[in-house]
Formats: sequence, structure tokens, C-alpha cells
Amino acid sequence: MTPKINFTPGPSQLYFTVEDHVRTAFREGIPSLSHRSKQYEGIYKKAVDGLRTLLGLPENYHVLFTGSANEIWERIIQNLVEEKSFHFVNGSFSKRFFEIAQLLNRKPQKNEVAMGLGFDATVAIPGDTELIAITHNETSSGVWLPLDYMYNLRTQNPNALLAVDAVSSLPYPDFDYTKFDSVFFSVQKGFGLPAGLGVWLINDKCVAKAEQLLAKGLSIGSFHSIPSLYSHALKNQNPETPNVLGIYLLAQVVDDMVRRGISNIRKETEYKSTLLYQALENHTVLKPFVKNKDHQSKTVVVADCGEHTERITKLLQEKGMQPGDGYGAAKKTQLRFANFPTHSREQYELLVDTLAAYQG
Amino acid sequence: MTPKINFTPGPSQLYFTVEDHVRTAFREGIPSLSHRSKQYEGIYKKAVDGLRTLLGLPENYHVLFTGSANEIWERIIQNLVEEKSFHFVNGSFSKRFFEIAQLLNRKPQKNEVAMGLGFDATVAIPGDTELIAITHNETSSGVWLPLDYMYNLRTQNPNALLAVDAVSSLPYPDFDYTKFDSVFFSVQKGFGLPAGLGVWLINDKCVAKAEQLLAKGLSIGSFHSIPSLYSHALKNQNPETPNVLGIYLLAQVVDDMVRRGISNIRKETEYKSTLLYQALENHTVLKPFVKNKDHQSKTVVVADCGEHTERITKLLQEKGMQPGDGYGAAKKTQLRFANFPTHSREQYELLVDTLAAYQG
Repeated sequence: MTPKINFTPGPSQLYFTVEDHVRTAFREGIPSLSHRSKQYEGIYKKAVDGLRTLLGLPENYHVLFTGSANEIWERIIQNLVEEKSFHFVNGSFSKRFFEIAQLLNRKPQKNEVAMGLGFDATVAIPGDTELIAITHNETSSGVWLPLDYMYNLRTQNPNALLAVDAVSSLPYPDFDYTKFDSVFFSVQKGFGLPAGLGVWLINDKCVAKAEQLLAKGLSIGSFHSIPSLYSHALKNQNPETPNVLGIYLLAQVVDDMVRRGISNIRKETEYKSTLLYQALENHTVLKPFVKNKDHQSKTVVVADCGEHTERITKLLQEKGMQPGDGYGAAKKTQLRFANFPTHSREQYELLVDTLAAYQG
Repeated sequence: MTPKINFTPGPSQLYFTVEDHVRTAFREGIPSLSHRSKQYEGIYKKAVDGLRTLLGLPENYHVLFTGSANEIWERIIQNLVEEKSFHFVNGSFSKRFFEIAQLLNRKPQKNEVAMGLGFDATVAIPGDTELIAITHNETSSGVWLPLDYMYNLRTQNPNALLAVDAVSSLPYPDFDYTKFDSVFFSVQKGFGLPAGLGVWLINDKCVAKAEQLLAKGLSIGSFHSIPSLYSHALKNQNPETPNVLGIYLLAQVVDDMVRRGISNIRKETEYKSTLLYQALENHTVLKPFVKNKDHQSKTVVVADCGEHTERITKLLQEKGMQPGDGYGAAKKTQLRFANFPTHSREQYELLVDTLAAYQG
């Protein structure tokens, strides 16, 4: 028995057009298409052009593909940091990015706050920091950061590259990409696609930095180094045999989203998150986990449910809805609700009505 | 117009059960299944257990998943070589493995022969070599190596780990895995699955070597280091959100192959390759590219077609068959024919009859 509406924050419920696109893909032989064919290059280009339009990417940004966002963490450190990265840590995923820098024998520093908190104050970042890593939306805690806070990082630290983990917020946020150097996500969250593909956006400064490390004789990886990915991307190709079906589906879904209109997607996301936060604020036994309204994520809403967690889960499941478990230690006391473009207003209204009717 | 029978050696024609399994996967919600759920662990275990049965893996072998075979090349060098690997190079893919060791700042050595040749003679390999890399089946040239030649490498070099690229030969070869330490493949060749997944088989000696490099303070990568992959594999999990759909499809197709019987698959592979090589030997204008019969691959057959290449391609396409282009410089003078488990006797008979009827 599969629940009909899946609110888990990742892998997410599929975007509602995916199954149709898969059917077309098989009919057209996409899964066995040569990744060196003109037809494949057309698919690659469609995905990249679509993302440029949907997200409003500047000209000097390039779109690269990896196997996962985990891999992008690794590639960022390998290609863009000789020694010093600085990490804003406020949950499990931002912490993991920091740890990956340690595993790669760099000397990362961090500014860490507790789960459920975001960042407000100006942080003193050493002047020789090569890269600042920040997580726009912490999937583990439902905290996100105001855009101005991230933009100010660039103003205050003009010599460091700024890498933004937007794994569980894109395509919603209306980023000014000129304020960042690298942004990345994986497709199984906001884009509602099957997992197995990471999307890495980098600007020319990242290309230059990787080439600079390489010129120093340092290893920046092999097939998925920035120079390798970038030189293939210029030909609409990948260094390896990629997840062709995944890139095809991304191209199709991005096209669907462009036609739906990113401003409509944004408005609906805001409507749905407002509805859910209001219901949590007004509830007798549930509360939003994130207290600071500026830090309440619009795309991953976390509810403190305490001893009611199991009963609410069962109640939602009976109505055909699957909430996401709380992350890690919060598994038995919190529930997480993804609010992605695939979740309709009607689905959110049903969710909110069901939660509101529960009185403990 | 998609050709009905695809003989390209990679991505290959899909295994004939894949489309049905995809339909079931969507019906059961597999593409949005949590990779931390019990249900996913069951899928992971099914894939691993199935591969153990199909390939006859010894107890001390472990099955790990990556994004591609390219990635496995990199992970092998990162995890198993501090400085010295030794590579048998006889085509584009074995050469690339060597180059990846260079890109990772190791000091690889090689024994190189021309495209179309294999290896016969004993090669003097330095005694301090940490890892020997050999490509069982060169997808670029249709050369493969007799099993005894590879087994002797181990006897002659007992201190080195032996890593075997079996990307385009498995599941056909009946390897004695106790003679190797690591074997790897990607799923879009002999297993007939959509690209985007690499399968890495390692024994306990590989785990020990990676831990030894780590204990020395060397970086062996991060999320996809052997210790990270292995500790997750023990729980039937992956470090990252993996290609869940790909692993599900692998589990299903391996199960289909186990039920069909690996000995039947082997017999049919031999029947089909014999048929094609005989047709090429007896042909007035076509010839097998690989002359030494011991080195003629049974899973990727390469035909020298000279000036007839374009006309034969057209002829085959008219009959609903798509040959693989010759690799790289041989694109205009050779054709490659995959002989994988998904290709039926009837498809091969049609191919061979069509080629035989062509007289230039």
C-alpha cells in the first residue's frame, strides 16, 4: 500500500509529470541512447538551457552534472580549496560538508549553532579563507537563511568563493547568482525526480580557481574535476557515461516548470507554507520547530509533535498522506513536511485540515 | 524511428524485462522511496545477494555502488594505491584508467600494446607494485584476455592487488574471484540497464589496504571511500542518496538472469559469438578486427568493414538493426557488435544472415 501523497523531504514525491515522461523515454529509446550521439547532446542542451531560463542564471554560470549532491561537496573541496574553507554549520547536512573537507585533508573552520537555529550576526571569517560554504536550507531542521544574510557574506568577504547548498530549496528561491560563485542541488527534492543526479552550478571564478590549483601541481580529481566537466559541458557532453535517463527527465520537468511559470511556483509555495505554519502556530499540541520566523524554511517545514508524533503519522497515513520523519535524534518527536512544486494546494489543504482536526 | 535491435556496446539495448520492471517500480513508489527505509534495505540486499549467486562471489567479497565505472577507476586509485600502480594498456579504456592514476598524482607504470592486440607474454612488473590494473574486455577494440593470463598475474605478483575492469564482459565470464581482489562493471552493458550506476566488487584485502592508507594520514576520498561505502554496505545502505531506481532495476534483472541460469546465458553467448565470427571469417569483404582467436572477445565483436562501413550500417538500419560505430579513429572503418544476454539467438541470426548476404 503506497500512500498517495508523499511529504517526505527527500527523496520527494515525484513531480506529477515524471511518469508520463518515463513512458515517452522508453518509447523513444532514451535509456539505451549513446551519450556521444547528437540526440543526447540535444537532451543535455535542453536541460541546461531550461535551467538557465527557470533559475535566471547569468551568462558566466555553467551547469555540470554529478552522481549526487554528496559528490558535489567533495568536488567543491577538491577543486576550489587548497587549504582553507569556512563552513556555516546548523544541522546534519551543513556539518557533513564540513566533515568532507576534513576527510580531504583540508583545514576547514566552522561557525556552528544548534539544530533549529539559523544565522543572524556578522561572523569574523579569516581573510585567507578560500571558500565559504553555506547551506541555504537545512533539510534536517527546516531552517533556512534570508537571502540578504548570504549576500552580505560576499560583501564582507570579497576574496573568498561562496558555495551555496540549495539541495532542498531550489527551484523556489529567487537567488541573485551574481552574489554567489557556486550553487548546487540534487534532483530528488524540489524537482521531484528519481535520485541519482546532482546539479552543480559554477561561475568562471570557480573554473579559474580549479585551473590555478592544477597549475600548482595539486590533484583536483580526475574525470569529475572542474576542467574535465567543464570542457565536456562546452560540447553538451559528460566525461563518463552519465545518468542519461535522469538528465532527460530533468530536461522535461524543467521545461514543464518553465511553462507553468516560476513566479506561479513561488506564489504557490508561499501560499502552502503560510497555511501550514499558521496551522502549527494555532495548534493546541503541535508547534513549529523553528521559532525565528526569518529562519522558517518555506520548502521544508518541521513540526514539533512530541508524544503525538506516532499518532499523527498514523492519522495522516490513514488519509493517504506520508509525512517525513524527524531527522536523526528527532525521529520520535518531530515530523517534516516537504513543500515542493509537485505538492498541490489541495494536497496542502488536506494536510492542514487533518492536522488542525487533531486535538491530541 | 528507433531501431528495434540495438547492437551498440554501450549503452546497450535494454534487457528485455527492464520496461516491465520500471512500470512495477512506479506502481510501487520506488522512485520516491526513502533510501533509509527498511524497504530500500531489502532492495539493496536483493541486488547484492542476486549478484553473489549469479557471479558466484566468494564470502570475502563485498558489493559497492558508485555513479559510474569512471568513478570506480578513481576510487580504486584513491583507496588502493599510495604511489605505484601498473596498467596493461591495449585500448582507450585501459589507457584512461592509467591516465586517471596520473591525474591523482600517483606514479603509474604501463605495459602498452597497439589497438587490436592482447597480452600473451609474461611481463616484468616491479616488485613494489601495489596494484595491477587489467581490462578483461577492451570495449574499444573487442580484445579480451584469456582467464589463465590474468590468473597468472596473481601467481607471479603475489604482493600486488589485482583489479579487473569487466565493464563490458560481465555477467558472461566464469571468473575465479579468488584470483582477483577487485572486479567492476557498469550496468548499461551486459546487464542491459539504464546508465548511471557502477558496481564495484572488492575483497577484504582491499578493505585492509584502504584502512592502511587512511591510518597513514592519506586522504582516500570522502563519502565514497572504501571504509564509508563498506560500513554502509554492511547495513544494506549507501552513504549518499543513491540511484534507488537503478539499484532496484539491477536487483530485478539479476533475479531474472539467475532464473534463466548463468550457464544458459554463457552457452547462448558462445553460440552467438561463434556465429558472428564464422560469418566474418568467411566473408568476402568483412574481417574480424582481432586476429588472435584467443583474444577475440565473445561479448564485443569488432568487424573491419573498410570502405563498406557506411553502406553496411545503412543496410542493417533498414532491417531494424543498429550496429555500434568503430571507436575513435576507427569510426569510419569498423563496426562493433555487442553480444550481451539481452540479444537473442534470433536477433543474432538475422544480423549474421544480413551481413552474409552483403557482397559489397
